[in-house]
Amino acid sequence: MLDTCTNRSTPAARAAGIPLLLTREPGGTALGEQIRALLLTPDNKGMSSDAELLLMFAARAEHLHRVIIPALQRGTWVLCDRFTDATYAYQGGGRGIPSARIAVLEDWVQDGLQPDMTILFDLPVETGIQRAGQRGELDRFEQEQMSFFEAVRANYRDRARQHPRRFRVVDAGLELDAVRQQLDAVLEELLAATRGPD
Amino acid sequence: MLDTCTNRSTPAARAAGIPLLLTREPGGTALGEQIRALLLTPDNKGMSSDAELLLMFAARAEHLHRVIIPALQRGTWVLCDRFTDATYAYQGGGRGIPSARIAVLEDWVQDGLQPDMTILFDLPVETGIQRAGQRGELDRFEQEQMSFFEAVRANYRDRARQHPRRFRVVDAGLELDAVRQQLDAVLEELLAATRGPD
Repeated sequence: MLDTCTNRSTPAARAAGIPLLLTREPGGTALGEQIRALLLTPDNKGMSSDAELLLMFAARAEHLHRVIIPALQRGTWVLCDRFTDATYAYQGGGRGIPSARIAVLEDWVQDGLQPDMTILFDLPVETGIQRAGQRGELDRFEQEQMSFFEAVRANYRDRARQHPRRFRVVDAGLELDAVRQQLDAVLEELLAATRGPD
Repeated sequence: MLDTCTNRSTPAARAAGIPLLLTREPGGTALGEQIRALLLTPDNKGMSSDAELLLMFAARAEHLHRVIIPALQRGTWVLCDRFTDATYAYQGGGRGIPSARIAVLEDWVQDGLQPDMTILFDLPVETGIQRAGQRGELDRFEQEQMSFFEAVRANYRDRARQHPRRFRVVDAGLELDAVRQQLDAVLEELLAATRGPD
């Protein structure tokens, strides 16, 4: 069915009727936010990469069991600020843990569950560091070296190429309005998929 | 070689020359103790079993990388208050996570490393609960029901039966002196193994 009336409004306005949960990782639960604090505080500098990765998945397991899966089961859309692709990028690309080793934990925790769509906000490392610096004090990850972020970005872009059906890459180096326009196009695509064939 | 001189002293006195590290899990590192706090506080009641298990192994990974493996490499003995058998007992027996699922994480974190000897302080659940109550406020695990501790104990005893070469079971329901005598016998055995054939 062609919805001629609402088609004229913005994608955001048309999405307004869809139940949506905004959440984030690491975090999104009381326990997850405590784990996030352990991961981000510069006091925990020197944490082993394996412990860091297991903490990420501990927060994710709690988030999936307590928040994400129940939301999906009641028909709510879940928009999560970072998920397992960030784990491959940071703990894989950044810390050097082999992807196959990360995949073992991904399977253990997610049991096959994957996002329907992943939006990568891609931008040059210099721009990202500059923006992070404007937000306030740098966390344990933000204090890493340039080479770390280059490896994170390369891993993210590799994953986007490996999973083209799931990924949408947004050029986040542009001004806010131009980023919003790209997001509108992504949202439009999601809404079209939800409506099904007209 | 038969060491006739020191053989006359107590096992504890003869062990005194061996470099020994006393440590505990969850904990044993700065990060591990922070994870321990998350695991034990009754404020985190309702934590999912998967998150609990991943937190245990996150603390263990840090402990292995930062403390246990370096100590073993320099020839120090490590005496750790709880290790992975406790994980099978509490998160397997107590929480019901299948052993095969725990084994995936054990392999991931330990890469085959196992204790040379595991001493199980076994006692009736009622006695254990009574003693825990005398120590002060109960932690998140100590607040569990009787059936939880029965399942934990059953799992521990099963594991001792499955790994008879590694396990020594001490009757910890007896008075302190009688428990110490049993430990002396275990220590004697360890010292004999260290000396090799006389």
